[in-house]
This record gives sequence, structure tokens and C-alpha cells, in this order.
Amino acid sequence: MYDVVTLGETMLRLTPPGLERLDQVRSLDVHCGGSESNTSVALSRLGSRVCWLSRLPDSPLADLVCGEMARFGVDTRYVVRAPEERIGIYYYEPARAPRSSRVFYDRVDSAAARMRPEDLPTAPFEAGMSQLFHTTGITTAIGERACATARLAAERARAAGMRISFDVNHRRNLWSPTDARSQYDEWLPLADLVFVAERDVALLWPELDSAVDLHALCRQATLIVTRGAEGSIAVTAEGSEIHQPAYQATEVERLGRGDAFSAGFIHRWLDSGDVAEALQWGAAVAALKFAMPGDMALVTPNEVRAVFSSDGSSQVQR
Amino acid sequence: MYDVVTLGETMLRLTPPGLERLDQVRSLDVHCGGSESNTSVALSRLGSRVCWLSRLPDSPLADLVCGEMARFGVDTRYVVRAPEERIGIYYYEPARAPRSSRVFYDRVDSAAARMRPEDLPTAPFEAGMSQLFHTTGITTAIGERACATARLAAERARAAGMRISFDVNHRRNLWSPTDARSQYDEWLPLADLVFVAERDVALLWPELDSAVDLHALCRQATLIVTRGAEGSIAVTAEGSEIHQPAYQATEVERLGRGDAFSAGFIHRWLDSGDVAEALQWGAAVAALKFAMPGDMALVTPNEVRAVFSSDGSSQVQR
Amino acid sequence: MYDVVTLGETMLRLTPPGLERLDQVRSLDVHCGGSESNTSVALSRLGSRVCWLSRLPDSPLADLVCGEMARFGVDTRYVVRAPEERIGIYYYEPARAPRSSRVFYDRVDSAAARMRPEDLPTAPFEAGMSQLFHTTGITTAIGERACATARLAAERARAAGMRISFDVNHRRNLWSPTDARSQYDEWLPLADLVFVAERDVALLWPELDSAVDLHALCRQATLIVTRGAEGSIAVTAEGSEIHQPAYQATEVERLGRGDAFSAGFIHRWLDSGDVAEALQWGAAVAALKFAMPGDMALVTPNEVRAVFSSDGSSQVQR
Amino acid sequence: MYDVVTLGETMLRLTPPGLERLDQVRSLDVHCGGSESNTSVALSRLGSRVCWLSRLPDSPLADLVCGEMARFGVDTRYVVRAPEERIGIYYYEPARAPRSSRVFYDRVDSAAARMRPEDLPTAPFEAGMSQLFHTTGITTAIGERACATARLAAERARAAGMRISFDVNHRRNLWSPTDARSQYDEWLPLADLVFVAERDVALLWPELDSAVDLHALCRQATLIVTRGAEGSIAVTAEGSEIHQPAYQATEVERLGRGDAFSAGFIHRWLDSGDVAEALQWGAAVAALKFAMPGDMALVTPNEVRAVFSSDGSSQVQR
Amino acid sequence: MYDVVTLGETMLRLTPPGLERLDQVRSLDVHCGGSESNTSVALSRLGSRVCWLSRLPDSPLADLVCGEMARFGVDTRYVVRAPEERIGIYYYEPARAPRSSRVFYDRVDSAAARMRPEDLPTAPFEAGMSQLFHTTGITTAIGERACATARLAAERARAAGMRISFDVNHRRNLWSPTDARSQYDEWLPLADLVFVAERDVALLWPELDSAVDLHALCRQATLIVTRGAEGSIAVTAEGSEIHQPAYQATEVERLGRGDAFSAGFIHRWLDSGDVAEALQWGAAVAALKFAMPGDMALVTPNEVRAVFSSDGSSQVQR
Amino acid sequence: MYDVVTLGETMLRLTPPGLERLDQVRSLDVHCGGSESNTSVALSRLGSRVCWLSRLPDSPLADLVCGEMARFGVDTRYVVRAPEERIGIYYYEPARAPRSSRVFYDRVDSAAARMRPEDLPTAPFEAGMSQLFHTTGITTAIGERACATARLAAERARAAGMRISFDVNHRRNLWSPTDARSQYDEWLPLADLVFVAERDVALLWPELDSAVDLHALCRQATLIVTRGAEGSIAVTAEGSEIHQPAYQATEVERLGRGDAFSAGFIHRWLDSGDVAEALQWGAAVAALKFAMPGDMALVTPNEVRAVFSSDGSSQVQR
Repeated sequence: MYDVVTLGETMLRLTPPGLERLDQVRSLDVHCGGSESNTSVALSRLGSRVCWLSRLPDSPLADLVCGEMARFGVDTRYVVRAPEERIGIYYYEPARAPRSSRVFYDRVDSAAARMRPEDLPTAPFEAGMSQLFHTTGITTAIGERACATARLAAERARAAGMRISFDVNHRRNLWSPTDARSQYDEWLPLADLVFVAERDVALLWPELDSAVDLHALCRQATLIVTRGAEGSIAVTAEGSEIHQPAYQATEVERLGRGDAFSAGFIHRWLDSGDVAEALQWGAAVAALKFAMPGDMALVTPNEVRAVFSSDGSSQVQR
Repeated sequence: MYDVVTLGETMLRLTPPGLERLDQVRSLDVHCGGSESNTSVALSRLGSRVCWLSRLPDSPLADLVCGEMARFGVDTRYVVRAPEERIGIYYYEPARAPRSSRVFYDRVDSAAARMRPEDLPTAPFEAGMSQLFHTTGITTAIGERACATARLAAERARAAGMRISFDVNHRRNLWSPTDARSQYDEWLPLADLVFVAERDVALLWPELDSAVDLHALCRQATLIVTRGAEGSIAVTAEGSEIHQPAYQATEVERLGRGDAFSAGFIHRWLDSGDVAEALQWGAAVAALKFAMPGDMALVTPNEVRAVFSSDGSSQVQR
Repeated sequence: MYDVVTLGETMLRLTPPGLERLDQVRSLDVHCGGSESNTSVALSRLGSRVCWLSRLPDSPLADLVCGEMARFGVDTRYVVRAPEERIGIYYYEPARAPRSSRVFYDRVDSAAARMRPEDLPTAPFEAGMSQLFHTTGITTAIGERACATARLAAERARAAGMRISFDVNHRRNLWSPTDARSQYDEWLPLADLVFVAERDVALLWPELDSAVDLHALCRQATLIVTRGAEGSIAVTAEGSEIHQPAYQATEVERLGRGDAFSAGFIHRWLDSGDVAEALQWGAAVAALKFAMPGDMALVTPNEVRAVFSSDGSSQVQR
Repeated sequence: MYDVVTLGETMLRLTPPGLERLDQVRSLDVHCGGSESNTSVALSRLGSRVCWLSRLPDSPLADLVCGEMARFGVDTRYVVRAPEERIGIYYYEPARAPRSSRVFYDRVDSAAARMRPEDLPTAPFEAGMSQLFHTTGITTAIGERACATARLAAERARAAGMRISFDVNHRRNLWSPTDARSQYDEWLPLADLVFVAERDVALLWPELDSAVDLHALCRQATLIVTRGAEGSIAVTAEGSEIHQPAYQATEVERLGRGDAFSAGFIHRWLDSGDVAEALQWGAAVAALKFAMPGDMALVTPNEVRAVFSSDGSSQVQR
Repeated sequence: MYDVVTLGETMLRLTPPGLERLDQVRSLDVHCGGSESNTSVALSRLGSRVCWLSRLPDSPLADLVCGEMARFGVDTRYVVRAPEERIGIYYYEPARAPRSSRVFYDRVDSAAARMRPEDLPTAPFEAGMSQLFHTTGITTAIGERACATARLAAERARAAGMRISFDVNHRRNLWSPTDARSQYDEWLPLADLVFVAERDVALLWPELDSAVDLHALCRQATLIVTRGAEGSIAVTAEGSEIHQPAYQATEVERLGRGDAFSAGFIHRWLDSGDVAEALQWGAAVAALKFAMPGDMALVTPNEVRAVFSSDGSSQVQR
Repeated sequence: MYDVVTLGETMLRLTPPGLERLDQVRSLDVHCGGSESNTSVALSRLGSRVCWLSRLPDSPLADLVCGEMARFGVDTRYVVRAPEERIGIYYYEPARAPRSSRVFYDRVDSAAARMRPEDLPTAPFEAGMSQLFHTTGITTAIGERACATARLAAERARAAGMRISFDVNHRRNLWSPTDARSQYDEWLPLADLVFVAERDVALLWPELDSAVDLHALCRQATLIVTRGAEGSIAVTAEGSEIHQPAYQATEVERLGRGDAFSAGFIHRWLDSGDVAEALQWGAAVAALKFAMPGDMALVTPNEVRAVFSSDGSSQVQR
């Protein structure tokens, strides 16, 4: 029994310590990162039962990824392990303003990009077994096989009566806006939850006056538009708009905020069905992530609730 | 000859590096921390001669604590070492807003909690040997034996003509407000200096209109009320009030600010007898501590004086 | 379905880096260690399905322990979490000859020592669910409640048709030889596998001419006597003796060798039923552990097999 | 062919990790730092071809300095290596407000201070070989021999038709204002570019109403007055004033900002000859340095240009 | 003017600290490694002037590789930088016996494998510019384009009157013995120096009675057969055999010993032309490398000479 | 009341981590080292009361040295602090055979070398205050003023009825054998204990047939000749020879063994007066030091006694 089944690529993330530049490092900190697995871990720490689907090589680095997921409670038993393939890597060079943090990908031809429809397990998609399926636009971008696998998963989820959650999460370095949009246009009508960043709507659907107008492409869904420091807006299937301001947070690391938002939203939405509450949880988990190293929001429900009543200052809790 | 004799528990403090969460650590940074020993080290670095009294097990971890105290000049020769007992530990998980930093204690039945009146040495309490005795409400809370030992020490100090300093330093996880208050009510009339946080007065003496009204319980003393960012107030034995704003400081670590305040105040008060100056020193040492890792304020008088003339910006001194 | 169910205490282990002494450390490396959990992790990495039973506080340090077990595939779902209790700790100061490595325990009154019979789950002891139950003499020594829990578990295991494995693993700092022996005397007739170090037999049963004579107390069992560098001997239920030399290994860390031995033996014995093979696997896993940091043998079956054909030199495998 | 030839001392810099105090360190981070070499490395990373001249002992620490310079592309082939001499060291204790960061020098009698005119190579000063010679007031202060060497280098540069750049960079711990001023008074009329901090003008030429009035002493030159957060001003040889605000930056490390400014200015000035552009580049490189650990600005032209269009917030660039 | 021109791939090497396993790491130590660049750096530190040719992406990781080479004095100005390509990576998991150290490659489709003949610079191959060209069988194995580039380089070297050095350095994971042998058979007649491991001869030319018989395939060359702890044998072009025992060394890291051997041999051979001396230098540099972390032998001629007179024990030199 | 008063220089020791070479380091481990202070700390940890005399600058690095001494119980109250002077430094590059470990000194003109007779305190040399004065040949070599100070201290010690201990500890990089010998020749007749390495006797007194013949120059003393792995020999004032084999130890770090030997000898000799026992203690403390990082033997009497009964293997003591 799973609350959430996710599907996507997880990469090894290598980061210089102490704001050093990549071209002078002597050691690299190791994290695991991937949009769907970030969401999975955050969901698991919040208390959801999560199963993550993917394809990885048969190497100790893939063991590392699965081990990290497992330590935080995510079920990795259905991850396919492919000998002779490679794991995607990305190098993250954090910086402080006015210098930009940089991400360098080395993910071409990764095992995840080669994920095949026949890699999908049947058990998580049996009727009554799971509540929601979640994936992102990244999975549809990394390779045709991965994209087809995600589509089949969505179909099976639908057939099993599961809800479907899709986070557009556009990566402009992976494909052209035209290709991306044609793919997203197929996903939007399938989903019950659609997450999208305001700036991605502006880039991909320039004809829209406002990001919330994207709801026209996914009327059946609750559309959640994230707007960084300006907060977020949900448009429900019924068409009502709910606004949520962003919670203030000290910057520790920028990555993974969107994935944390999805996790907070989905966790609460599955629990209570209340979109306003879910939006508030999404905002709080995203703020907590921002103040935390690594790609994953490692937070408990109590910590989320503490954000609601916080005055924004840092405290010591004894 | 000591300027100050302190008595209390020092624990091993274990802290995750780099804002990691405790449940994912691979190593822990080691500090020593305890309210009275924090004050002792800060006093010693300011130039006071300090003797710290306590009880510790006969283990290398206790050697570590005594060694750290000794390296900063505190005399530990009278610390009692009890075979088969244990040292208190606390885990400190620092965080950035909106997440709270957390402290997890593992101090039950520590050697310090079992400190006995007969553990007290006589030399530091001989007439003319020492100037001031300092302890805190924590010592009165950790165990009946420790509490009785502190009381005997205060009596001996009084008999030897020493001044007595008592920092309420209420720990709500150690006992109930009722128990605590009944104990504090016995200490307040004994002390020449009483330090208390405004929020502790509000919690423990809710009937008071204002924290400075606590002076009614310790008319013989100078009462120092600390109010975080809002500064501090002293009420002298003569009843006059002196206000001191807080100095701005960059947050590096929240712990130990109150202990640093006491050290700054006591050091200057013993030197000059001037309450306004002492309050200013307390505020400056607390600000310096806030911008420093660890529980202890490692600062020199010159650095304290530099705070008085600082414009609040960070400088390089060559 | 589990191959092996284990029960026992896991502690936080804190170790100075780089052969420093405990009284001078500035950071401590964090491992998790406990005889039964060490065996559990090694079994899991060899491919056995393992469920570990224990009692831990409701703290992030206990989350750390469970997380480490989970990352290596051990099922921790039945571990009881008790608010307000404490986790056992031990400090390990490694050394090189002629200095001895030292272990300092701080485990009195740990949550595990307070484990109660009612903490036992039923599922792992249902008929057909699990193959073997494993515990050690340490669990019988740390507290009466823990001992009673282990006894009940053994009874349930017997009732469910499971095999029982008992590793004497005598800790002389936990109890007297007399108390220990009277407890062990009750366990030996219950077990199908009994592991014991030769030096423990000499200490506890001084009347025996040879460690293998202990088989008189557990005639129903296969008795495995470990003798350090001199290898090991098994006495089968039928009374035949099998000798196995120790494999040479470079010392990296001394702890956990016995637990690794048990894991290797049990894994192979459950697989093939062949005592000679099992003894060989035990010896190989123990040798691999000796050349590895931490308490746990993190090795695969292929690495075990490579030991059998190794000439003892270190190789690079590309 | 070099764009820039620099001459000056580079020291080993030793820094406590994690804001620790120098009197409690167990390890020290190692950097190399010296005003001219900082400028050299920044210039090299911006794309200039740079040759650095100096004198170092014949030791592995000097190899370390040369190696660091070489890894960033600076030509060190003409650095003189003197057996039996010593390398200058400085200890940098970073701090957060209200504590001051501190620099402790141990540079007396360093090999660089003993640099002799005959140590100068001829090749970089051949006609047409190099475009600009750069040194600072520090080199004129550390020793008479070093000062004489710098003077000879300037003369040779002049003879070869090179431009001369002089950064006053006054160090009050190295000499008296009177001695310093008399030396600077000789350099100012020699230079095509003069960099000076506003506060140094106030200290050394107190009779001037404004720092820009220093241009009276170097009418042939472009004078660049740096004013910290208040930006910078250039006075061209023609006497026109150009003002440049400072770019906002998050403080990571204070050292090396002035050297970064010079590098940005010189690089652009040699490229385009445009003083306003050069000033903007100087300001941007200085801002980037401020947000970076170590003494050296490791930045590319693209990163400089990104500062011009930045809104001051930190970004992730994928 | 170069003494040696080398051509080959350099990869990023990522290594767990402290003998940890790859699947549990939290950070990875970063080194650069590649057979030809290892030899290049060792040659440079011994005093040879070396130019290394290769192809790398246009990324900070490639800057890191070039920077490391440059810091040790190797000229990297002709390395081609290809946007959008990737750098090869290998993970090195060191172990102690009886566990094997392991190397995991992720080098498919690296920029170096795609090196093209037109990437070759002309300057190093101009007549009189360089003395010797060195490459290895790895370069011929990683890709057809790389192999063709190496062949062209050898031809140009021959045309420029340079000596040619070829180290067979067979990697069985890159190609089949048959493919490898057919390629090596073309290289052997081209080379003036051929380095080969005895075990590779046994694998690839099983028809030979002895490794030295390989000299039949390269009669024009000096053949150097390395035999690990059993030393090495050179067969000169004149057919005489010279035997050199291996020097004893404490194992610190196994990688790069062969490359260090080549460097020692080539450096001395170019200097003195004496094969026996060159063999002795090769053996000494290899022994020094074995006792050193990383892939590269960072040693000076004085340290090589000290090996000749050493009694094998470790000493302190003040 | 002191058991031992020592006098000499303590330097900052900077060491690359992990067997790296000095010219590639990014951080350096910090220790304090000096022959007399090494002996002082070891004596203190064994239980002797020790006062260390020296001269240091007024800097945080000198605070570090004094703090380290104090943490291990050595009294540093009489150390003179001289503003504007410098602390000696040495870089220690450890290596494994066949590479030699190397020490690079930067100690010229250190504050200790400038120690003056008037820096000597009177209290430790008052009659009945202290038992033994210890210094080494290094102190006599680093500077004339230091040498004169040591001589005056010896005279005062003699006047106060104290014993005098002199360790030749010849440093050939500090002076010529001739100069050294003429100085040592003055010290030998003054001392009650003379420690000398066999190789130093061979170098300095080549006319002697055997190192023990040096006793002719110090007939009043017990002469202790150390011979590395071959053990040590004492010649008593009565002329009897006592031989002590060396205890086996695993090499962790070579430095400080001789100083540890002196400490073990002196501690036991003051306790029991028995030369054979003292020799055994010296050998054991030296062996323990060899297996320990840093310059100082941090060992307890129990650990020394454990060496006597050890079989040479490494053990775990629980």
C-alpha cells in the first residue's frame, strides 16, 4: 500500500565544499538528487508511504542512491538495475550573489534515460494499492524511452483509479520550448494536480496573459502556479483561485525548493483534500528546504506546523 | 586567589557539521558546554582568575572537559572525579529560520547531578581567597544533591565574605515552574547579583507587571534583566534602573549568549563596581558570543572595547 | 518472509579520527554498532532477508540508527520507539600496538535494556514467516527486561518452527562470570547454533579441558568455537569436528569480527546446510571485516568467494 | 608576450576553519596571498597573459605558491629561488561583526623582502614583449632591496614602452606615514594608472580636501580612488571625473577586494582603453571577490558581464 | 622545446576517504588520473620539459585537470577543449587484503575518446622541438578516433626525428585480447621503447615462452618487461638482457606504479642513454609512487637517488 | 611544588594530512612541538608536576602553544611573552619508505632563540620547590641568549639542590659538530642524567670506541644511550651497565620518540630511583609514542605497565 508512486531519474550530485570553485576542488560532497526522488523523500519524512520507480546501473553508486532513498523510508524495491549502464551525474557549484550558482549536467545516456515501459512493475499499479502517481516534465525530456515509460505509468495509474500529479519542471537545457510544449500539452489533460513555475508558463505559453490561464489546458485538474518569493496560486478544478504568500527563509541552498513544494502539497492534499491547506504546506516545506543543505527537504509535520506560527526569526528549541 | 568561583555541570556537546540533521550525520563536532563553565571561560579570557567546581566521571571525556577549561585558564583542580559515573551529553542541531535549532539532552543521572556537599573543597571558600561565587538555576534543577551542594557553597561563600551571583537561567524541560519558583525564591534573597531573562520572569512570576518588579524579591541585590534584542536593564540595590541597548551582531551560533553576558558583567563589576559599565560589558560580550561558534565567548578586553566604538560593520584589523 | 530475525541493542558509536586520543578530540566519527545489528547488516548485504527487533528512544539519534540499518536493507519496522528514553552510546578509541584500543560504554538504562516482552511483534514469529532467530549473550546481560524479551522471542521462534542461533559473546564488564554462566546455561540447550569464543569458554567454564567440550551442554546444536588467528572449529550435532583456519587480513579495525563471522556462517548454513562451507564463509566474512572500518561487514558473496582463491595480497580489480 | 608583468611578495596564508579562533585551531586552511599575485591570478582568469616576478626560498612551500599561480595560468618562470631564505606567512582570523577579522604577519626578512635588482629578468622588459607593469606600495615597504628592485623594474618598463600601474595599498604596520609618503611621492609621477583607497589619502595626505585632489601628484596618470561601499572614482589624465557605484555582494571574505578591483580595471583598460568601462569591470570583479573565499578573484569575463545585468539576488544557472 | 610529448586521456578520479565503501560515501576525494598524464607529471617533477596532448570538454572539471597538470609544470597549451562533450570519470575504491581495491570506469564517449587527428598541434612535432613521443595502449583502445590520432602523432614524431615510447598497458575491460593484440602488433615495430607487464604478455601473446621473447616483435626497440615485486627486465635493441630487482615500499596506493616506472625510465634514458641506469630509475620511481597517495609520482631526482642507498626503512630527514 | 622544571623552545608544527606532499596541500594539521615541551607533557600525563619555561611572542599562536601545554597539565605561568617577536615554525612532511619523512624549519630569530637570562623566574628555583631541571642540546644551539639562559637555569637548579637532566639531542642543521661538542662538553659534567643517541656520539665524539664510553665525560651522571630498535643502555654513576631492549611498536609517527623516552625515564627515576626500572619506563613510553600521532606521548602509567606484559599484538580493552 503506497500513498504515492513516483517515477524519474536520480543523479549523483557532486558539490565543492565551502563555496570553492569546481576547478580548484580536492574533494566533492556527495548528495543524491532528482526531482521525483526529492519529492519522494520529503513525502516519506512527512509520513507518506512512497514507492520510487527508476532505472539505475548495477554499480555501487546506484547502491548509494537506493540506500539514501531507503534510509529516509522510500521503497526502492522496484528500481530496475541495468548492468553496463551509467548513472547520471551533476555538479553543483553554489555561489553567493552577485555570482550565480551553477549546475553542470553529465546525464546523457544515463540508465534512467533508457528506462523502458517493460521496466514498470505491476504491483504498485494494482487497483487499491496506491493513491497517486507523480512525475515531472524532466522525465519526459531525458529520453524517448523514459517518456514512453512515464506515459504508460500514467495510463496504468489512471486504470487503477489513482490520482495523477504532474510537475512541469521545465529544463531548457534538455530540449526546445516547442518540443517541450508539445509533450506537456499531452500531459496536462491527464493530471489531477499540475505544478508549474510562473516563469515556465511565460516561456512556453507566451500567448497566455497570466500563468493561471494555463488552467484552460487542464480544467480537470488543480493547477498550482509557483512564483518564488511572490508566493503561489492554486486554481481548483472548480475554477476558484487561492493565493498563498511565500514564507521567509534564510538561504542555505537553492536547489530542490520546487520538489519540496510538491511534496508538502501532495502530502496534505491526500490527507485532507483541502487545497488551501495543501498550498500552505507546500509553501512551508519549500521554505524549510531553502534553509537546508542538499536537494531534499528532511522535515517532519511538526516542523511544518511550526512555520505557520513562526515570526520568521531563528529559535532554539530545547 | 580567585576572582570568581563557579559551580555547575559541564556536558559534552555534539553538533552536526554544516547544518546537517542529526539523523544523517557521519561525524559530530565536539564542544564542551555548561552555563557556569561557559561563564568561567569567558571570565578567564577577560582576565579574571576563575575556579570551576563540579563532579565528573573518571573517563577521557571528562579529561576532555577539564582540558578545555584548563587551556583557557580556568582552574579545575577541585573538580571531583567519580569512577563509574557518566558525563551529561547534549546534542545541538543548529538550523536557520524558519527551522528551529534543537537541543536534545541526555543528562539524567550525570555525575554532576550527583554532586554532593562533601565534594566541596574548602580552599576556595577560605576568607580572603575569592571574591565572588556564581551559579545558576540549572544547578539547582539537575538533582537534589547538586542543589544541596550549591546551597552549601553559597553559605560558605557568604561566610567567607564573598559576593554571590545567581543566574536564574530557567530550563523548563528540567522541572515544573512551581518547583523551580520555590527554589528560586530561596536563592534570590541570597544573591548580590541576580541575572534573569525577561521571558523567564513572565513564565515563573506571572503576577508581576514587569520583570524589573522581581527586584522586590532580591532588594539587597543588583537585578539584571536580559531582554534579547531589546537590550538589558539593571536595577541596583538602591533601586535605580539602568538601561542598556543590545549591540548588533551577525548570528553564528545562538547558544551561550546569556552566560557570556554574565561573564562580561561580573568581570567589569568586580573591577570597577560600576553597574552601568558592567551592563555595557555584559551586552558587548554577549554580542561577540553571538557571532562566534561554540558555547563560550573567547574574547579579550580589547575586543570588548572595540565593540563600544564599532559602527556594527565587520572590519579587518591588520 | 525473513531469513533471519535478530534481537538486540544497537548503540551510537563515537570514534576519534586519525588515532587521536578521546581527551583531545574536536570531532567524533559516528557509527552504529551492536552485535545483533552488525550481524543483521552483514547478512543483508550477503543477500539474506533480515528483520531486526529492538527498542530505541523517539529521537533523531534513533532515527540515525534505523536509517543506517535500512540503507543496508535490514527491516526495522518492528523496532519499538519509546519517548523519553535514551540510546546507549559507546566511545571507541582505536590504537596501534603496543597501546590497546579502548571501548568506553555509556549504556546503562538504555531503551534497549528496558525492552519488554510486550514489545515483541507477532508477525515475524508466525509459522512459515522466518527461518532463524539470532541473539547474543549481550542481550541477556544488559537488563532483566531485555533478557526476558529475548527468552520469549526464542520460545516463539521455537513454536514457529524456526532455528535458534545464540552467540555467547560474553561481556565481562556487564556481569559476573557466575551470573553470566547461569544465564548461558539456560540458552545453550535451546539453540541450534551456538557461537562462542575459546577465551570465553576458558573464563566461564574453567572445568572444561577444551572449548569443544562445551558441546556437552548443547548436544542438539552445532557448536562453533572461534579462536582468533588460530581459526575456528565446529562440532556438529552428530559430534564431528570440522576445523577451519583463519584467513589473513590487514588490520583496519578490530571491532565486529565475531559478528561478521556469525553472519557469514548463518548465511551459508541457511543456504546449503553444509557446516564446513558455513565455517569457511564465517572465516572469510570475519577476515573481510577486519580489513574494513566500522563495526559492520559490508561485503557481497562475490567478495567472500574471492577470499577463498586469494593469495592474501591486495589487488586492484578493474 | 605578456599583457601584464607584476612584481611583489606572495605569502602563505593560514586560516582557521569555521570561524574558530587562532588560539584553538587543530588545522589551518592554506591559501597563497599577496597583492600583486592576487591581481595576477585574477587577470589571468579574465584572459590576460601575466608574468609574476618575485623571490622565494627553495622550499616546498615556495613550490606550493608557484604551483598555485601556475594552475591559474600565471607564468612563474622568472621567480628567483633562494636557498636558506624564508617565505613570508600571514595568519588570517576571519570574524563576523561586531568582532573584527584579524591579520597577523610573520613576514620580516622574507625572501621577497630581500629581492635584489639583479634578480630581475630581462626578457619581460624587452621592447614589445609586455604591455604593462604593475606593483604596489607594499613592495616598496617590505624592504629596501625589494623597493629598489621595483624601481628598476619600473624604469625598465618605461624604457620598453610599457605602461606602469601603481596601487598605493598602504600598510600602516609596515612603515610610518612619513616614510611611506615620501616613497609614494616618487612613484606617483611615474605611473599611468594609480590606484588608491580614499582612507589612505586621508591618512597620508591630510592636507588634501578630497582624495581626487591627489591627481595633482600624478597628472599624467588616470587616478582611481576606491571608496568601499560608496563606489569608486576615476580622474583621467585629461582631468575628467568618472563615478562608479559599488555592486552589492554577500560577504564571504573581505581580503583581496582591492587587488580584484585593479585586475578588473587593468584587464578592461588594456582591452578597450575606456576608463568608464574599466571602472565598471573593476567594481564587478571586486564584488565577485567579496562573495568568494580566498584572496583571489577566480572569475571569467562572462561572470563579470553577468554582474552588470544582475538584480543583486543569487541565481542558479543550469 | 620539450623533452617529452605525451598523448592520452586524463580522467577525474573520485575516491572514498578512509577506506569507506563507495555505496556509503558522503564525500569523494578528487584526483586526476590517466596513464600518459601520470607519466607526464612524474617526468616534469623529475626535471623533464613535458607537453601533454589531449581533448577535454569546455568545463570547470577540465579546467581542474589542466590546472593540476600545470601546477606540476606540464604544458597543456595544446589540449583541445570541445564544448558539449564530457570528461571521463573513474571511481577508485581502495581496499586492504583480503578485499580487492576496485576501479569503476565511466569513460565511454569521453572527449578524449573522440580526439581527432586534426586536434594535433604542429609545433611540438617540428624538427628539433622535442625528443620523445610517449603514448600507451589505452589511447589506442578508447576509441577509433583517439587511436588514429595517436598513430598520426607517432608518424609526425618519427618524421621529426623524435624517439617513440609505447607502453602496452593493456586494459582488458576496454577490448578483446584479439582486437588489442592486432593493434599492439602495429605499434611494437614503431617504438624505440616498449613497456609491457609480464602478465599482459602472457594474456595477449600466449604462444611466447617468456615475456622477453616479445622482443622479436620490436627488435629495433628496447623492451622493458615489468614484473611487479619480481622486478623488471630490459632487452636492448642489441639483444642484451638487464635485470633490475624491485625496491621495497610500504603500500599507500597501488595505482600509477607502471606510469611512474615509465617516467623514471624515460627521464634517465633521455639524460644518459644508459638502459641499466634507466631501469634503476624506473624501479625507484615506481617504488616511491607505491608509498604515495594519488596516481602520480611527485618525486625529485634527489629522492630517487636516496632510494638507491636506502636500507628500506623509513627515515626522518631534517 | 614541581617535580620537573624544563626550559626550551616550542614551535608550531604544520603537517600535511594524509601523506600529501607539502607543495600540494590545501590545509595543514597543527601541532605544537619542542623537545622539552614534549617531555613536559608526557611527564605531566604520567603524573609528574611540571613547569615549562620559555619565551614566546604575544600572539594567538603563542596562546595556542600555552593552551595545549595547559590542557595536558603543564604549568606555563612563567613563560615570557614578548611583543613583536615571532614563534618558530616547522613543517613536517611524513612519508612511508622508501621516501623519507622531512622536516623543514623556520625558526631563525624566534622569540625562544632570544630568551634572556633575565627571563628566568625565581620561584621554581627556590630551595625545595622543584626536584629536577631538564633541558636539551637544542636549547643551547638555537641562540647565544637561549644558551646563556639555560646555563643560568642549570646553575640555579644546582644551587637549589635540584637534579639536572641534559638530553644531547644533537641537531646537525643548527650548528657544526665542533661548536656543538664544545658546548656539550660543558654540560656533561653538570648533569645527573645525560641522554644521548648512539648515532650522535658517533658523529660528535668519533674518537670513542663505544657510545657508553661517553660516561668518561660525565662520571657523576647516569648516562643513557638510546639505540633505536636496538634498545638502550644506562651507565650508572657507579659505572654499572644496564641494557634494555626496545619494545615493538607499529609506526604511526616517528617524531618525539626520544623526548618520550626521557619523560618515561625521568618520571620513574624520580619516583623510585631505580635506573633499571626507569630505563624500562623510558623504553615503553617511547614505544607508545611511536604508535601515536603528534610529537607528544599522551599516556598514563597504566598504559605503560600494560606494555610490560604485552605480547606485542594490538588489543581491544573494554
